[in-house]
Amino acid sequence: MTLPEKYPSKLLEDAVLAIGSLPGVGKRSALRLALHLLRQPQESVHHFADSIVRLRDDAKYCRECMMISDEDTCSICSDRSRDHRTICVVENVRDVMSIENTGQYHGVYHVLGGIISPIAGIGPSDLTISALVGRVKSLASEEGSPEPEVILALSGDVEGETTSFYIYRQISGFGVKVSSLARGLGFGDDLEYADELTLGRSIVGRQPFKP
Amino acid sequence: MTLPEKYPSKLLEDAVLAIGSLPGVGKRSALRLALHLLRQPQESVHHFADSIVRLRDDAKYCRECMMISDEDTCSICSDRSRDHRTICVVENVRDVMSIENTGQYHGVYHVLGGIISPIAGIGPSDLTISALVGRVKSLASEEGSPEPEVILALSGDVEGETTSFYIYRQISGFGVKVSSLARGLGFGDDLEYADELTLGRSIVGRQPFKP
Repeated sequence: MTLPEKYPSKLLEDAVLAIGSLPGVGKRSALRLALHLLRQPQESVHHFADSIVRLRDDAKYCRECMMISDEDTCSICSDRSRDHRTICVVENVRDVMSIENTGQYHGVYHVLGGIISPIAGIGPSDLTISALVGRVKSLASEEGSPEPEVILALSGDVEGETTSFYIYRQISGFGVKVSSLARGLGFGDDLEYADELTLGRSIVGRQPFKP
Repeated sequence: MTLPEKYPSKLLEDAVLAIGSLPGVGKRSALRLALHLLRQPQESVHHFADSIVRLRDDAKYCRECMMISDEDTCSICSDRSRDHRTICVVENVRDVMSIENTGQYHGVYHVLGGIISPIAGIGPSDLTISALVGRVKSLASEEGSPEPEVILALSGDVEGETTSFYIYRQISGFGVKVSSLARGLGFGDDLEYADELTLGRSIVGRQPFKP
């Protein structure tokens, strides 16, 4: 049983409430972090706040793959040495970073910005699926080029499987190879916590998508 | 073994480094929090950053007890119904909030702003000990008033005990009663994690300080 917290200062309370609104940060941690920031030099607190505001205000998304980027086209999509006919579909930029860290993938990406989740109220139109369909269609319609490949690299839970199936149905008619990650990972495991060896193997040993 | 992280965006990297500089926040959590903030409405991210900057820029310290406060004198020190001849000496404002939450204490406080720690390079002059000595001296010299009391409510570890002993030597000559918290708490326990019942009992059952 805890009595309601009484803060000695409204400024402190505002900061604690703001920090405590972050996912996974409780009130006690928020107070600890607020008091930590209060003890830091003024310029480093300003730098802290500025870097967050600038991220929110100025971050762009690559017009090819929808990944967060400082330019209109991200460094991966503008790298001509990569295989632009292989598109790895991921939920978010964390997954791109995880796969890049394996050093096993040389194609490009498509960042969905989430996965289909009726519980969270996220439908296909909230994601970048139509842009993906457009990319795949235009790749597949290029005369004389080899068949493009789409790797569905989504988490192995119900939402991930649903999203993979939805995308498969949208693109399977275009003459495109659709594969999914080899599940060397335990079924239901979250992509971002996989170790690089397992995740790298899953990329190399990807399998044709069986709906 | 983790390869060095490569961020797709400098803005993202800056924000992750800033968030990851907070104590107890690792790089992976920092990335998660940065991407969370990126998904929030622009005005709530601005509010988040503003509340932290305002805390750092505008927070004052009570000129009596040195606690963080929006006014020159905090709400506890300006409350005439409290016992201004009993001063509870604590490390920081979190400890004030913990003791206030017990509802067992009706005196005033003195916030040291830390404890003496040779390892962390914190000496007596980095704390508000001289201001405390001044307060106690002036209380004790008031003609015809009862003997004031100083409660040393510091953590039960070596640094806390050292600080208590240092303060005791500074003020014991003034004709002041010096007490310390009843150690119903386990020896070496950190003050802020104590439950309110135990902490409340420690306030009520405080004992004369035996150096």
